[in-house]
Amino acid sequence: MGGDHAPKSIIEGANIISASNSKTHFLLYGDENLILPLLAKCPALKNNFTLHHTDQSISAEEKPSIALRKGTKSSMRLAINAVKNQEADAVVSAGNTGALMAISKIVLRSLPDIDRPAIVTFVPNQKPGATVMLDMGANVDCNSDVLFQFAIMGHAFAKVVLKIENPSIGILNVGSEDLKGSDAVRAASALLKDSVLSDSFHGYVEGDDITKGTVDVVVTDGFCGNITLKAIEGMAKMVSGAIKQGFSNSFLAKIGYCLASFSLKSVLKRLNPKNYNGAMLVGLNGIVVKSHGSADKESFANAIKVAISLVEDKINDTIIEEIKATTNGCNGDYSENDENI
Amino acid sequence: MGGDHAPKSIIEGANIISASNSKTHFLLYGDENLILPLLAKCPALKNNFTLHHTDQSISAEEKPSIALRKGTKSSMRLAINAVKNQEADAVVSAGNTGALMAISKIVLRSLPDIDRPAIVTFVPNQKPGATVMLDMGANVDCNSDVLFQFAIMGHAFAKVVLKIENPSIGILNVGSEDLKGSDAVRAASALLKDSVLSDSFHGYVEGDDITKGTVDVVVTDGFCGNITLKAIEGMAKMVSGAIKQGFSNSFLAKIGYCLASFSLKSVLKRLNPKNYNGAMLVGLNGIVVKSHGSADKESFANAIKVAISLVEDKINDTIIEEIKATTNGCNGDYSENDENI
Repeated sequence: MGGDHAPKSIIEGANIISASNSKTHFLLYGDENLILPLLAKCPALKNNFTLHHTDQSISAEEKPSIALRKGTKSSMRLAINAVKNQEADAVVSAGNTGALMAISKIVLRSLPDIDRPAIVTFVPNQKPGATVMLDMGANVDCNSDVLFQFAIMGHAFAKVVLKIENPSIGILNVGSEDLKGSDAVRAASALLKDSVLSDSFHGYVEGDDITKGTVDVVVTDGFCGNITLKAIEGMAKMVSGAIKQGFSNSFLAKIGYCLASFSLKSVLKRLNPKNYNGAMLVGLNGIVVKSHGSADKESFANAIKVAISLVEDKINDTIIEEIKATTNGCNGDYSENDENI
Repeated sequence: MGGDHAPKSIIEGANIISASNSKTHFLLYGDENLILPLLAKCPALKNNFTLHHTDQSISAEEKPSIALRKGTKSSMRLAINAVKNQEADAVVSAGNTGALMAISKIVLRSLPDIDRPAIVTFVPNQKPGATVMLDMGANVDCNSDVLFQFAIMGHAFAKVVLKIENPSIGILNVGSEDLKGSDAVRAASALLKDSVLSDSFHGYVEGDDITKGTVDVVVTDGFCGNITLKAIEGMAKMVSGAIKQGFSNSFLAKIGYCLASFSLKSVLKRLNPKNYNGAMLVGLNGIVVKSHGSADKESFANAIKVAISLVEDKINDTIIEEIKATTNGCNGDYSENDENI
């Protein structure tokens, strides 16, 4: 029930996936009065879903603390419960990010030795490829331990999702020299240099290195990560708007567009954030994928694809292994009852 | 002598300005062995310059503390001294930003009631227009008082440079709700709401608001500002590279480009960072303009234009007035001997 086009984009997105993948079964949580008419128009989903009705949902404006207390029968809470109860392998939501993180932390709890789950996503780069980036906004203030844990999780995520054997890691900073940056950034750099990930650690990277693809994984706090990602998206939107305007300015330009459009579209498609929709709430004892709130059906389908690949590739097993390796196995014991949330 | 193409871009940039503006006299500081041959090819500069030879210069890698101690006869130091000694109205440099700020702070000192000078620049927005943004990297950690002072300086800068009567101010944050963000950001917001600038204060803005042009002035700390600006520039570069590639992919696309290029170029020109070159080191007792290190002659000429307009429009008088107004005149006395650096 979350996002700007819910439940339409969500149901239609699931339908897109079902059309080519009959193995995936969807547990749908939401208002059946709105969902059933949509399902009638989604033939591929037939036999591939179970609908759980609830008339409660969490709005985009709801504070996480309120969502946590009052939203116990909300569509979001029930969907996360399904992961906790092992009825579902993953949850995908286009709803309130703060609420999704807060409820996931309480219901699923953090992985052992992870202080703060983070939001990890991809940004297209010019290599061409994608840069893994975290945290995208779950944690405003991050100390060096937290940044170090982000590096471990980002490394595991890039390994699994981008299929890179030994992804390179960079810490986002205002310069590449050792003395640059905040205390937290410098201390996190020292931790990485002193860890089993030292060979993967490139050092500091700057803002333009994100799209350059200088490293596979860019680590930053949630304040800077959230602002930077949105700034990049804003710039992409402005440039594509300007290009459209340029093509419509004159008759000759319009003809030019007709001739070049096929080629241009294929290149620009790669840079479209839509094709990168699906951020993971990483560091949780379960797979939680966040779609953009503005996602349309194709975009939401992409978020579902990300969730499926994270399940198939057992992302959390890789993260747990990497944490064990970096902590030399001392604190790596995995317990269902771990209270580290 | 600073920047990737020094002293060539610097001398040729000054020549571009001289061609249309004979009122501006250039004091050139640097190695005459390199500069004299360049001057021979710059006829417009003839009679419009005084060359001060020095064979010392500060490299891009030099630490600010070292530059400060050892660079007393460097081209950068001598140029800043000229502003201090009122031989020059402004200094423009494409050199080491950290050194420029450190030397400027020591030589020129801060304006009264300004704790930390900042770097302020423009980002093109889709309104279309330009968004004033600060700090772009001079201050990694900023408390609420410092962010509040940035807001005052950014407001004055937008007034003078963008000729907006009452520019709107936004604080960069991860969301628009009151509770979002770090302690410093929330406290700065409270200070602004409680000041004479309260009517100009829009509230929090997010990363994509920079290019949307939601507010005229975006305030943030130097860590986030530097990273965000470079990320935006990186994205712009990637998109324009992708467009070029799209146009060269096929014969039809190439013809399309020929037909659309005039219109496209005029639109994209507005988004070219070159046309926005020239950041001000604001909050100093003198006008210091920083050009991109990679600036070519047109780009450096633009930085000179920015410096000229800041001198003509008496930017520092406006800043001093605004500070006096916000501090109710209690601390606004201006003293040549102020030790507030």
